[in-house]
Amino acid sequence: MASDIARAVLIAGSQLPPEDNLTARFGVSRTTVRKAVENLVARGLVEIRRGKGTFVAEPKIRQELTELSGFVEDMVALGRTPTARLLDKRPVAASDAVAAQLGVSVGTQVYRIERIRLADGIAMSFDETYLPLDIGEKIGSHDLEAEPIFSLLEDKYALPLVEAQYQLEAVTANEHVAHALGIAPGSPIFLIERTSYCDGPRPIDYEKLHYRADLIKFVTRLSRRPRQKP
Amino acid sequence: MASDIARAVLIAGSQLPPEDNLTARFGVSRTTVRKAVENLVARGLVEIRRGKGTFVAEPKIRQELTELSGFVEDMVALGRTPTARLLDKRPVAASDAVAAQLGVSVGTQVYRIERIRLADGIAMSFDETYLPLDIGEKIGSHDLEAEPIFSLLEDKYALPLVEAQYQLEAVTANEHVAHALGIAPGSPIFLIERTSYCDGPRPIDYEKLHYRADLIKFVTRLSRRPRQKP
Repeated sequence: MASDIARAVLIAGSQLPPEDNLTARFGVSRTTVRKAVENLVARGLVEIRRGKGTFVAEPKIRQELTELSGFVEDMVALGRTPTARLLDKRPVAASDAVAAQLGVSVGTQVYRIERIRLADGIAMSFDETYLPLDIGEKIGSHDLEAEPIFSLLEDKYALPLVEAQYQLEAVTANEHVAHALGIAPGSPIFLIERTSYCDGPRPIDYEKLHYRADLIKFVTRLSRRPRQKP
Repeated sequence: MASDIARAVLIAGSQLPPEDNLTARFGVSRTTVRKAVENLVARGLVEIRRGKGTFVAEPKIRQELTELSGFVEDMVALGRTPTARLLDKRPVAASDAVAAQLGVSVGTQVYRIERIRLADGIAMSFDETYLPLDIGEKIGSHDLEAEPIFSLLEDKYALPLVEAQYQLEAVTANEHVAHALGIAPGSPIFLIERTSYCDGPRPIDYEKLHYRADLIKFVTRLSRRPRQKP
């Protein structure tokens, strides 16, 4: 029943017919229809949009996680149109976590930028960016809805990025992140913390990227370590 | 107030004192104490264990995601003692997803193994393993609570692994996964789907690894693609 619905009746993005329609169409009880839909929701094949109905889920974007790249580069590579909404930009005192990542003392003034990143008009990621104050204020003087920070660093300020440390976590959206992304609090978030380096030991950019986990997955290939022969 | 609690009063794993104690200690209202605790929960610094109280969160395990390695190898590298509990092992018909990953037709008999993986006695991951039927039945004849599947493949059956495709997602625990891991349904899960290959085009092993996301994060380093000079 669940797979009948998934395969025969519906295409990605379309809305599920009302329960009455499904009971009639498949000649089963309302309970059976509900169980089938619950099963599809649990498997991520359909999704309930609050106050709107039940829809066939779009397949998740599969984004490569094989080299250091920015949101705009990633979305262009996927054939999507990236845009950004700036929520906030200003100097702040570095918290414990930010200080540790940027290699400064706790309380040091750093520059913080808060943006929503969109793909084809859909909010995909809520991003916090922390930069050392001097370069941050320069970056912050630009139109951050139009210009990617990686491009500004590399092209405008001659600070080419070399590599980054990534921390990957599954978390649930708190009120602030949920509001920014237009999702329910408690929704799954793929959190990437990324600390980027130019040529040298000092980090230049620490980001917390909160991706809507219902919209994206990350893919990579890893090799087995060559085995030691006894 | 929140950071006072976090820094001054408590160490990882310890239980928060009762509210009355905290109001007296810090000379603040009950509302302030509650807000501070909520703030700590939102930041992942403390966690509420249902029916037991509020505890200072243990820092997450940081596991390298840089080469193809098995759970036992990973935990040993982290200084933890890995064990396993076998929940199920038997031939099943390949679903769409399993068939696609193992490169067989939908409905083909494959071998499925369900285990809980533990580190120092704590359930860390709920693992589903799918193998081609012939090798699966051989693997299934062993004590899968004692012998890691990677070791059996490589050492017992001379099938050295070469590389794997990884898909990384943030999801929430369904009833089955939550029950297996002893966590609440809806808790965040770091889901790794891994399809491993020996020397050749045919996959040998497809796994769905459901990690407790409150216990683990994954770390890697990625390099920037060398830039083309104009």
